[in-house]
This record gives sequence, structure tokens and C-alpha cells, in this order.
Amino acid sequence: MQWSTENCTLERAASIVGDRASLLVLREISHGVRRFADILARTGVPRQVLTDRLTRLVDDGILMRRPYREDGQRTRSEYRFTDKGLALIPVLVALMDWGNAYAADDDGPPITVFHHECGGEVHAALVCEHGHVLEGNRQTRVRPGPGARPLRESVA
Amino acid sequence: MQWSTENCTLERAASIVGDRASLLVLREISHGVRRFADILARTGVPRQVLTDRLTRLVDDGILMRRPYREDGQRTRSEYRFTDKGLALIPVLVALMDWGNAYAADDDGPPITVFHHECGGEVHAALVCEHGHVLEGNRQTRVRPGPGARPLRESVA
Repeated sequence: MQWSTENCTLERAASIVGDRASLLVLREISHGVRRFADILARTGVPRQVLTDRLTRLVDDGILMRRPYREDGQRTRSEYRFTDKGLALIPVLVALMDWGNAYAADDDGPPITVFHHECGGEVHAALVCEHGHVLEGNRQTRVRPGPGARPLRESVA
Repeated sequence: MQWSTENCTLERAASIVGDRASLLVLREISHGVRRFADILARTGVPRQVLTDRLTRLVDDGILMRRPYREDGQRTRSEYRFTDKGLALIPVLVALMDWGNAYAADDDGPPITVFHHECGGEVHAALVCEHGHVLEGNRQTRVRPGPGARPLRESVA
């Protein structure tokens, strides 16, 4: 590789959402689970870690808080995806697909993602701008993009 | 959600590869960077962390070691994807797409993924079994899969 990794967008994405606790929070939000106590119970993430991750995900513009109030309770926040957060759905589905293929129990995966309109099972795929759905995972290559920067001498 | 998260395959995938250092290692392998010193220089992951992650990724069947030897040097290992590792390419592309959309510098992303056969730019997409490429990220729903298990009482 002849270009620098200093502005790598995969690295930036991994730095923002590439940790187990954040991914579990995003899973819950994608399933419509919106309240702290429910996310806590369903993820098993320690309370303080969960508080931290929710705050970070809000600060990063991935989740937004909406107030709600139940009878006799104080006002609390629930969490929903922003558009930036919704755009992570393909990451979640790709991870789940891989888990289904390589880490499911014998009885199969606990959930299936389907297409709201037609009911068909949904999977992550690699699609090129000419409409080809890539078969297998050996058909991708990389080339410098518009922001490619030269590799510095120190990183040989 | 009426089913248990105990056998969630997204969670298992996140537990195996859902950390920044592992994702950076996988990025390098996907770019054909195979040697410890090169991965170390290009990721900036601390040496001991890198050693640990490479060992884990080999133990998890995602990478395999192949010996190589340069003149006058001892035999070392280089790292390549197994099929299980190659199957993570959609996860990496989906993360990169998201980073390109939300975390790129003004001059754009440093690399572009393209289709080896036709040269077209490649992106991660959600495709359903009936051949629909989903537009936007609001068209997915989830339903219980074959391994769905009832929610235990304690997790209300």
C-alpha cells in the first residue's frame, strides 16, 4: 500500500462504533428498544459503561434523546437513531450475517432480518456501481481515492 | 422484543472482531499487508496488543499463518485470511462506507473499493432474497429466527 492510513475512514468508523458495548446498544436501537432500563437488561452492559456509550453515541450524532414520562415518574430520555445512526444498519446486518455463518448455535440464529415490503430475508452484500452483486469475497480491490495521501518516510 | 439475546449472533461477531485494533488488523490483511512489522507500522496498534490480536484472530480461525524467510533472517510468519476471515469483507466495506459518509476529511476518502471484473466502485448494500436492493435504511424489520428462545423472566 503506497498511501497513508492517517485519514482512513474505516479507522474513524471503528473508533466511533467499533467496540462491543456500542454495537450492542446499536443492535437494541435497531430493534426498537429505546429505554435505558430495557437496553441495560437486554445487553448486559454494565450500567456505567452503558451511560458512557449512550452519551458518546448522542455526542457523535448517532442517537438522539427524546423525553418521555410515565405516570408518577420523572421525565426520562429514550433513544432513537438519527439518519447518521440509521446508516449503520448495513454494518449491523453484515456483522450479524457473519455471526450467523460462523458463530450460531446448532438451532440457528435467533432473529432474521426481512424486507418490510416483500418479506424476503435481508442480507448484506457488496454491490458495484454498475449493478453487479459480487459473488464471494475475492472480487474487491482497492485503489487510491480522492483523499489519498503519500505515505510518510517513517512508515515504510 | 420477545426473544432472548443469549444466543445473539451479532453479539458473538462483535465479541470476536468488534474492537478497534482487530478491525485495523483486518483492514490491513484485506489490503494484502501480511507481515507483522508492516501491520504494526500501518495501524499504530501497540506491539503487544497487535501480537495479542493476531493470535486471537488465528485462534478464531479468521487468519492463518504462513512461514516466510528473507535472506539472512529467521523464519517469520505472515498472515492471510481464511475463508472465515474473507467473509468479513462486507463488514469492513460497510464500516468504511459509513466512515466515508460521516467521517471523511473534505478532500474525501483515501481509498476506493472497486469490483475487480468491471472496475465499478463497490459499496455495502442490503439485498433481500427476492433480489431487491433496499433503498435507504428504514425498510428492514426483524422476526424470530429458527434459534429464537423465550425471554427469561428476569430480563423483562
